[in-house]
Amino acid sequence: MQTFLDCVPCLLRQTIEACRMVGTDVEVQETVVRQVLESLSGSDFSQPPPRQAQSIHRLIRELTGQKDPYQKIKKRFNLLAFGLLTDLEQKVAQAPQPMATAVRLAIAGNVIDMGITGTLEDAQIHEAIRHALAYPLQGDLDQFLAAVAKAQRILYLADNAGEIVFDRLLLQQLPLERVTVAVKGAPIINDATVEDAVFAGINQMATVIDNGTDAPGTLLSECSETFLRHFNQADLIIAKGQGNYETLSDVPKDIFFILKIKCPVIARDLGGAVGDLILRRSQHQ
Amino acid sequence: MQTFLDCVPCLLRQTIEACRMVGTDVEVQETVVRQVLESLSGSDFSQPPPRQAQSIHRLIRELTGQKDPYQKIKKRFNLLAFGLLTDLEQKVAQAPQPMATAVRLAIAGNVIDMGITGTLEDAQIHEAIRHALAYPLQGDLDQFLAAVAKAQRILYLADNAGEIVFDRLLLQQLPLERVTVAVKGAPIINDATVEDAVFAGINQMATVIDNGTDAPGTLLSECSETFLRHFNQADLIIAKGQGNYETLSDVPKDIFFILKIKCPVIARDLGGAVGDLILRRSQHQ
Repeated sequence: MQTFLDCVPCLLRQTIEACRMVGTDVEVQETVVRQVLESLSGSDFSQPPPRQAQSIHRLIRELTGQKDPYQKIKKRFNLLAFGLLTDLEQKVAQAPQPMATAVRLAIAGNVIDMGITGTLEDAQIHEAIRHALAYPLQGDLDQFLAAVAKAQRILYLADNAGEIVFDRLLLQQLPLERVTVAVKGAPIINDATVEDAVFAGINQMATVIDNGTDAPGTLLSECSETFLRHFNQADLIIAKGQGNYETLSDVPKDIFFILKIKCPVIARDLGGAVGDLILRRSQHQ
Repeated sequence: MQTFLDCVPCLLRQTIEACRMVGTDVEVQETVVRQVLESLSGSDFSQPPPRQAQSIHRLIRELTGQKDPYQKIKKRFNLLAFGLLTDLEQKVAQAPQPMATAVRLAIAGNVIDMGITGTLEDAQIHEAIRHALAYPLQGDLDQFLAAVAKAQRILYLADNAGEIVFDRLLLQQLPLERVTVAVKGAPIINDATVEDAVFAGINQMATVIDNGTDAPGTLLSECSETFLRHFNQADLIIAKGQGNYETLSDVPKDIFFILKIKCPVIARDLGGAVGDLILRRSQHQ
């Protein structure tokens, strides 16, 4: 998916929020914002928004001297999600359709996205869980079940810290011996890295790899050889979150995108509405 | 008031909305956005937001070839407001405190601000009227009444088209022989120009001048000599809307700002909340 003009103000809002999270003074924030403005003025809008975000957050890390501005918030949401896990596992176990409930809860975790909002209260997580269990799941659940049953190699592209604990619920419904879970190769916004996968215990459930990049999505042209081998050999990709959708929606591969729609641009692209719970098979498989 | 970092994404949103209103194709819109990004990256943030908006809208007019992109919308809201006038005049006449009700309704009209939102439905005007009559008026009404009673020369700085029809209600409560009404010198967003003042019949009530500029506020350093003479000789200034607040909040003059708070930056600066109805005497008179 390309970068749309509406992404531009949003990327600037994200820039300001990230600077504030780091706790820099206003002068540094202004320097960052000016450089981001300059950079965006000449950037390639045919590239997806995560490519722009990658450049922006590299700038933020460089100018603020903070290698991982979202470290604290990642830990906070990992802990919060872990505290909910037993209860959520029970919800899945008791559900008439455990896979559907696991998908819904994996989508609930997708609300933990600091690219969308610089602040997130614990109550919003609880509300997201209630919402995900109550609202229609828009998508191709039967196709998903069939693809999972048939797949020999499943690659699960995780999205954010905190959210990755919710992903355990969905992973538990998959044939884990055939699943590899991929996280980001370096800190970017609050995206999950290997550290978060280990915290969530994912490495005790399935093979965990990283994609070798610091983009908040999956920019194949930048991913490591190891990741690309897994990606190319997989006959089913499960891609969590907007960033993975934005970077992979045009890739000819059997991908199921699982996400909550959190912005009008994605809503338009998916033909849905903000808030929708999405399980969508790629148009290009 | 300076331009805060939070104004930057908002100015870009306004840029995109203005381009769409003009109906240009996406390529022209992208050119405008890139030039605005470039321009903002080097702009002077100690200047108020209307200075940035002035540059941006000059760019939009130049690149789209449209001298007055908001012409249609200005006419639409002038007509809409005019249709409400008789009813609103009755509301003022029947009110226990006509001046307070006139101020409230003048604030209701301040919702017609295309700098804040690119779309505005008729129903939102009706809702703004209900809101303005029901919610607390925050400010210095007694001081305002005293200042009006004492003033020899009152300069009323109008804000937007449509809104200027609502201003009639407040003007009718003033000693009109001592009042001059100033509008903008050239089209800028949906700000009122002489054409709108004439449509609203303001020229039959008081002296009407323009300020000689195309800024969505009052940038004194750019205003015409005629306007500055009126400004300097006035012993009471009534300034409508956020743009006039942003450009005059630090000017040492007896100014009453009358506005609805429509953004978090102004809310913080005024110590209020978005939606508040404000009648505030300048701190610097």
